[in-house]
Amino acid sequence: MKENAKISNAVIKRLPRYRRYLRELQKKGVDKISSNEFSSLIGYTASQIRQDLKNFGGFGQQGYGYNVNGLYTEISAILGLDKEYKMIVIGAGNLGQAIANYTYYYKAGFVVSGIFEINPRLIGMRINDIQVFDYENLVDFVELNNIDIGIICTTKDNAQEVADRLSFAGVKGIWNFAPVDLEVPSHIALENVHISDSLHSLAYHINKSQHAKEEQENK
Amino acid sequence: MKENAKISNAVIKRLPRYRRYLRELQKKGVDKISSNEFSSLIGYTASQIRQDLKNFGGFGQQGYGYNVNGLYTEISAILGLDKEYKMIVIGAGNLGQAIANYTYYYKAGFVVSGIFEINPRLIGMRINDIQVFDYENLVDFVELNNIDIGIICTTKDNAQEVADRLSFAGVKGIWNFAPVDLEVPSHIALENVHISDSLHSLAYHINKSQHAKEEQENK
Repeated sequence: MKENAKISNAVIKRLPRYRRYLRELQKKGVDKISSNEFSSLIGYTASQIRQDLKNFGGFGQQGYGYNVNGLYTEISAILGLDKEYKMIVIGAGNLGQAIANYTYYYKAGFVVSGIFEINPRLIGMRINDIQVFDYENLVDFVELNNIDIGIICTTKDNAQEVADRLSFAGVKGIWNFAPVDLEVPSHIALENVHISDSLHSLAYHINKSQHAKEEQENK
Repeated sequence: MKENAKISNAVIKRLPRYRRYLRELQKKGVDKISSNEFSSLIGYTASQIRQDLKNFGGFGQQGYGYNVNGLYTEISAILGLDKEYKMIVIGAGNLGQAIANYTYYYKAGFVVSGIFEINPRLIGMRINDIQVFDYENLVDFVELNNIDIGIICTTKDNAQEVADRLSFAGVKGIWNFAPVDLEVPSHIALENVHISDSLHSLAYHINKSQHAKEEQENK
């Protein structure tokens, strides 16, 4: 893992996407791919790809291309996807249930061990075999079960309090879906999925596209 | 809208976040904020903030700061959030239901008019007053109701076909939650929420943090 320290955040951000495309290539039985072929597929320039993947040395070979399986395995390992993560979801509303289900069905290596909720009507329910527990018992549960990741699916007003409690309980990472930026101690990894920011960007691009189209038509 | 053409994509990406923080300031009754104060809040440097917000001229004033209400209104308008958008969700699974609910409850200006599904057991259901329709009727529905945005919550294997049909039907934008990159005509705006990419980044940062912590302890 030592060489990872040198890999920039921008490259790390692109790794899941590289991995996703490599997985598709694997499924199609493709053994090797040149940076040019990869470029037309993934939409980065060939030189960007060569630059990015240089970090993982040895898989690109002049006139041969990248070894798809080797690169997939290497990137998976760099991302830590060769390990298993124990997760809990906080908030058993629609989003919490959706994320719990999504991870339950689709994400090998990421195991949801429980959902935590303050609403007494939901506590005790099971959602696809995952039990809904009382939020009051969160800290004990995290400690007893060595939970790695807390997934925050609460309202934005409760999210920071939940993040504080998860940090205190000792999770290693927080995956935040609440539309707010959280403060967590520096040793805890934090990843935000700001769904509404994405919707607002979409609104901007729709207006820009419409505007460009109208200009075109008025010419 | 003419000046928008000059605003870079990177700035656009940051606008929803600026807007979110300005909204919080409004709620707290804050009228004005300096770039330095804003910097410590939002986490961008003061010079980055000045650079970004220069695009929206006139709201920053030397020795006074930004007018919170004015800037909020301006950014909202630039993003197109002073308009209403009609949306449909494709896929009535957990994620589709979660997104429909989320938008239904929280997003003024974004109206979900229907959910489309191929599973006959779900067609005809209502999810919070939003009806689940047969996917076969999607094109007619989009045309008749002037739908602006299609939200793809299907599996990745069906997502491209859905995107093609939405494009044909005449939506202006696609909000894609399927873990795949879609191809759409250039006049259609596309925004992806790649949830699993975000989870994989989190896994990377957890391992990096753990690694750094162990190194620290071994010193």
